[in-house]
Amino acid sequence: MTRLDLYPEMLSIDAFEPFGDVLTLGGAEQRIINEGSATRFHDLAKIDIASDYGYPLLNVFRGQAKDIPVRIKMMERHPLGSQAFWPLSNEPFLVVVAKPGAAPAPDALRAFYAPPGIGVNYEKGVWHHPLLALNKASDFIVIDRGGDGQNLDEISFTEDIEILLHGFDDAS
Amino acid sequence: MTRLDLYPEMLSIDAFEPFGDVLTLGGAEQRIINEGSATRFHDLAKIDIASDYGYPLLNVFRGQAKDIPVRIKMMERHPLGSQAFWPLSNEPFLVVVAKPGAAPAPDALRAFYAPPGIGVNYEKGVWHHPLLALNKASDFIVIDRGGDGQNLDEISFTEDIEILLHGFDDAS
Repeated sequence: MTRLDLYPEMLSIDAFEPFGDVLTLGGAEQRIINEGSATRFHDLAKIDIASDYGYPLLNVFRGQAKDIPVRIKMMERHPLGSQAFWPLSNEPFLVVVAKPGAAPAPDALRAFYAPPGIGVNYEKGVWHHPLLALNKASDFIVIDRGGDGQNLDEISFTEDIEILLHGFDDAS
Repeated sequence: MTRLDLYPEMLSIDAFEPFGDVLTLGGAEQRIINEGSATRFHDLAKIDIASDYGYPLLNVFRGQAKDIPVRIKMMERHPLGSQAFWPLSNEPFLVVVAKPGAAPAPDALRAFYAPPGIGVNYEKGVWHHPLLALNKASDFIVIDRGGDGQNLDEISFTEDIEILLHGFDDAS
């Protein structure tokens, strides 16, 4: 079994732009509402349900904490809709993505470290690994697409890909 | 100035059914996903954006804590779409609603106490008071409708309506 090492980057809006949205209040448009008693951080993600036979789903995913070192061997994508993850815990998680299109080779993957309180929204068709919670089991609000149609593709790798967390103190 | 007293009920799925969804994991459909490493609590709210020129918005509302006793004098509704509130804090909040249709009289209002961790989704057209956070300023994930069209109606009352919180220990 060969093994490929993957070094995560800190999640940032710019670096994640090819893959979707970073869900954070920093930089969001703020509107004062309700006669001044509330602030609306407006339109934080491009929720894209893509077709007239789809509809948005509000769900919670409860992800078990991954063993360290984190090893992955597959990726998935949702060709018909975006998928947003907003953490309800105060724990970090890992994001592994590749650009839409043909199935990615392992060396085309990019990994990001999402610090506590920050979420992501995968654009429609972006390859990503399923939820990689760190430290302890964590709940996430997930907004994705329901309705008819084939909205899940998966690929498997022949090698293990190990995500090296050194330098990210919360998780190491 | 006359004053009407309103006694809140504890939020429950059955009692809130005429107004929308209670957002809670209790009773939700659970699906084991990601090769057993996660649970999906599936489809927790009827997100209804109502028309082909609307689209779902993901936002955060930061509501200031209301002074006790809580007094209200207006209600609003969104005729074109539902609006979901999921608390990110660990604080309770108050929900005041009336059925869709003609503007409600003050004695047609119903109040609910939402304990920490529980949210609500107002159905399209349901009259409701804007966010009533208790105890301290609190953030809520809000999923509502964007797009063209008039999606806000407001009414004002000539009397104050005071919400009596006695018996709800977290908030009194």
